[in-house]
Amino acid sequence: MYRTHTCGALRISDAGTTVTLAGWVQRTRKMGGMTFVDLRDRYGITQLVFNEDTDKELCDQANKLGREYVIQVTGSVNERYNKNGQLATGDIEIIVSALTILNTSSTPPFTIEDKTDGGDDLRMKYRYLDLRRNNVRSNLELRHKMTMEIRRYLDEMNFLEIETPVLIGSTPEGARDFIVPSRMNPGQFYALPQSPQIFKQLLMVSGFDRYFQIVKCFRDEDLRADRQPEFTQIDCEMTFVEQKDIIDLFEGMAKHLFKTIRNVEIKEKFPQMPWIEAMKLYGSDKPDTRFEMQFVELMDVLQGHGFGVFDSAKYIGGICAKGAASYTRKQLDKLTDFVKRPQIGAKGMVYARVNEDGTVKSSVDKFYTQEVLQELKEAMHAEPNDLILILSGDNAMKSRKQLCELRLEMGNQLGLRDKNKFSCLWVVDFPLFEWDEEQQRFMAMHHPFTSPKPEDIALLDSDTGAVRANAYDMIINGVEVGGGSIRIHDSALQNKMFELLGFTPEKAKEQFGFLMNAFQYGAPPHGGLAYGLDRWVSLFAGLDSIRDCIAFPKNNSGRDVMIDAPSFIEKDQLDELCLSLNMPEPKKS
Amino acid sequence: MYRTHTCGALRISDAGTTVTLAGWVQRTRKMGGMTFVDLRDRYGITQLVFNEDTDKELCDQANKLGREYVIQVTGSVNERYNKNGQLATGDIEIIVSALTILNTSSTPPFTIEDKTDGGDDLRMKYRYLDLRRNNVRSNLELRHKMTMEIRRYLDEMNFLEIETPVLIGSTPEGARDFIVPSRMNPGQFYALPQSPQIFKQLLMVSGFDRYFQIVKCFRDEDLRADRQPEFTQIDCEMTFVEQKDIIDLFEGMAKHLFKTIRNVEIKEKFPQMPWIEAMKLYGSDKPDTRFEMQFVELMDVLQGHGFGVFDSAKYIGGICAKGAASYTRKQLDKLTDFVKRPQIGAKGMVYARVNEDGTVKSSVDKFYTQEVLQELKEAMHAEPNDLILILSGDNAMKSRKQLCELRLEMGNQLGLRDKNKFSCLWVVDFPLFEWDEEQQRFMAMHHPFTSPKPEDIALLDSDTGAVRANAYDMIINGVEVGGGSIRIHDSALQNKMFELLGFTPEKAKEQFGFLMNAFQYGAPPHGGLAYGLDRWVSLFAGLDSIRDCIAFPKNNSGRDVMIDAPSFIEKDQLDELCLSLNMPEPKKS
Repeated sequence: MYRTHTCGALRISDAGTTVTLAGWVQRTRKMGGMTFVDLRDRYGITQLVFNEDTDKELCDQANKLGREYVIQVTGSVNERYNKNGQLATGDIEIIVSALTILNTSSTPPFTIEDKTDGGDDLRMKYRYLDLRRNNVRSNLELRHKMTMEIRRYLDEMNFLEIETPVLIGSTPEGARDFIVPSRMNPGQFYALPQSPQIFKQLLMVSGFDRYFQIVKCFRDEDLRADRQPEFTQIDCEMTFVEQKDIIDLFEGMAKHLFKTIRNVEIKEKFPQMPWIEAMKLYGSDKPDTRFEMQFVELMDVLQGHGFGVFDSAKYIGGICAKGAASYTRKQLDKLTDFVKRPQIGAKGMVYARVNEDGTVKSSVDKFYTQEVLQELKEAMHAEPNDLILILSGDNAMKSRKQLCELRLEMGNQLGLRDKNKFSCLWVVDFPLFEWDEEQQRFMAMHHPFTSPKPEDIALLDSDTGAVRANAYDMIINGVEVGGGSIRIHDSALQNKMFELLGFTPEKAKEQFGFLMNAFQYGAPPHGGLAYGLDRWVSLFAGLDSIRDCIAFPKNNSGRDVMIDAPSFIEKDQLDELCLSLNMPEPKKS
Repeated sequence: MYRTHTCGALRISDAGTTVTLAGWVQRTRKMGGMTFVDLRDRYGITQLVFNEDTDKELCDQANKLGREYVIQVTGSVNERYNKNGQLATGDIEIIVSALTILNTSSTPPFTIEDKTDGGDDLRMKYRYLDLRRNNVRSNLELRHKMTMEIRRYLDEMNFLEIETPVLIGSTPEGARDFIVPSRMNPGQFYALPQSPQIFKQLLMVSGFDRYFQIVKCFRDEDLRADRQPEFTQIDCEMTFVEQKDIIDLFEGMAKHLFKTIRNVEIKEKFPQMPWIEAMKLYGSDKPDTRFEMQFVELMDVLQGHGFGVFDSAKYIGGICAKGAASYTRKQLDKLTDFVKRPQIGAKGMVYARVNEDGTVKSSVDKFYTQEVLQELKEAMHAEPNDLILILSGDNAMKSRKQLCELRLEMGNQLGLRDKNKFSCLWVVDFPLFEWDEEQQRFMAMHHPFTSPKPEDIALLDSDTGAVRANAYDMIINGVEVGGGSIRIHDSALQNKMFELLGFTPEKAKEQFGFLMNAFQYGAPPHGGLAYGLDRWVSLFAGLDSIRDCIAFPKNNSGRDVMIDAPSFIEKDQLDELCLSLNMPEPKKS
């Protein structure tokens, strides 16, 4: 062992003892005849002291240490004269008597500090140096702690962690599958799983009763800020349960994590909100419920007064921003610009301020009497100094989504989205299907194995779009951390689903044949859910992107810029796989 | 919840209570007016009773239940008249008052019993049914318990589990890499990791100090009985440690697993055997030390007596099989055939029996006097009724490997390889290089990052083959469960290694450039090891193949016969990846 203690271990009670430490040189300072070195490792920083008067040669050596040199020192623990309350080891320092340089270091391309001078690209290229920074390291420590606690909880609840294969089969519609050519089976391909969905259902058929796995999943799709081609899922499935049982058990897991990781005790049950209510009140199936500002529908109040935009609208809805009546015209114009951006797509925005005296002043005063504006105030539960913002449109769901964006933006502007405050809920009663305009057919909102609510089965043919699913999402602070459903275990119902989703029996068999076969041999009632680990860690760490809680993430083009992957490979390697490249001709300009 | 209890929960103390159970029908028996059903779930079997006299309709329903039907029953717990000591629930039965069939089942293609009538192929095709069998299920339960205990131990030792990427870069010599075409980067490929070796070393450079990961690794090679294209590794790495520290810590982990999983307390330290000694005494770098039967070199004793085979040999070695003098000529002929099989390749075998009276009778009596044979007996520490078996050859290492096979076979025949007895050791001081006859150059015995022993560095140029590595394998019962090494952290020494291994500086840079770059920024001394989880679980489960401790294994052609993967894919999918198939012309006959 190169050390007797870590750099975070020593305290005033160790004063007088002789210790050996090893670590990285964070910084050196020369003050008169003294040289101070901050020695860093994963556990902390300890101050080393070299005194020219005591040992000039040693002190000279210390003066030559560069940033990020790896050194080993032996010395005695000494009480500091100027204690540092910021450091756990701040009461002591080491009077060094021996110094060994274990390795030198070139000057790092950016500073190894919480606030570094390195830009994103540089930090990703030198990710191994970026990972030395406290805040990046602590995200990975948090991730480790969370997975330990998740496993502890699920193990106690009798779940078994079972590994499902990574090399599986590609499905005919698996456009987003990564594929893997098989050398031993030329011309044939494995696929990497987008999720272990089918395998976990097979495990339920096998009687495993309670399964989980913290597992990598893969999706070859264009990436957004919070997507990675490989991501980690907490995948769970249970047998002989109903929706309520799953919700109870996994709400328990969430509470366990809040308690053990964030030291937040949540006593009350998470609210359960039907999907349709979430859409009506928040315009989103993952509402951020850290703040109120719920939608109010204003058709009754605002239609029929001669304002053409509203009179022809299919939906008028407003939100009330508490205390924001002081917003300037400029701020309001910026909000209007915000909702008119193509990504949001509203035609415009109407606002109304509630004055100190209770009167209301709106941007469409010429169409509305003060009396109607007072009705508006009532409907919005608005009070003096509040600001009412109103959107309208000819498609209720679209307008709601626009109003949702506006609400979240106001939440940001008014500081209502505190990263240290947590608000959890379940969104339930999702529609089983959603209508796909492009393909002019129903698609499964979750996946084709999701069970309809028993009381809605009668509607499958007559009112397909109205059928609700036994499906549920867990939402924390507007982030969907997980979701799942009760699955269909009845072959006849499953065939009905395939039919409604436009699968021919042949196609259903081709794609899901082995699951359908398995279901003939005594499939039990079952259901489950999956959490996005990356998202959940990010949420607990207060990060804006999942990237910072992944040790070696990929960029938006799916590249790992540190190792420079993916890359071209040798022709031999392709030949062995019976493959050849067919690169498109470069376009002529 | 479909049940109040599992099928393994009820005891005599529950008698009189009303319960609801759910599970699979294991078997039904009709005896007079009574029908008995064994109801099974993951936790056990509970006997259900239906009485024709009490409720004829219900009993009729029960009589129609087929094997593997999924049912739910409600009834009262009753003390059994004929108790079944084999079952944890054998003191009670359920007098059923309500029965619901949750799902029917086709007749399974094989019986769901410990000793099933299904062959390997059938069981693999219907793996989801095979997994219902007690013994298969218990292997996966064991696997879960082992990974939980491994994580518990390593977490307590301050290790962090950190996920490394699955989509990495292919190395130019990565003939055994699975590759993954990237849609977003046409013509470029990811590779699946054969191990996270480089990433864990980067994590050490990042200061993570103690890392582990239970992680899938991939190798596209021809498969043997105990190989799978995807396998699971317990991957570990530590900073600021020497070989002794790593051995101590992971010996602790092994002992923790023996204690918690197998209830075996190992107090003494594992023996450490230099590689050369293991080769000399057992002819193997993974000796099965459950039994002695060590090799004795017999050149001094047996050469120079006119027996040409021995006189011209470079190696003569024997083993002493205690009490096996009773082996018949037929048995001995079979042993001779065994060592002469092409896989082993010995030219022949000499034997000598020690008679009751101490005299020795050998197969080459005409060349040796009784006096010499008594010397042989002495050398072999043989006693009356022992059997001495001798091999010779012109290459010591080859002969030792042949003798090793013979020794293991004798161990089998004499019942010395008890699966419930465990013998652990470390093999240390491996050679750093091994000579590759085919390529006429030195290869790294472990990998190019393995550190030579400091005292042997001087020999690198002068006596390359004699340099020993700071490398170690943990062997249990002749199985290499894990191994690792102290790594090189010094760039100059690493470059020297590359040179000795025949890498040009350009090629070394191309292949390991980013690791070499990282090493310029303060790489600490580090080392680690990796265990094969599949092997270790098999060992603890007493299995002959790793396949039975994997939920969904692949066969010897790398196929998952249940889901029929790998498989052909649509041309569209290949087009999108700019790939085309180049299948070889079928050979003309």
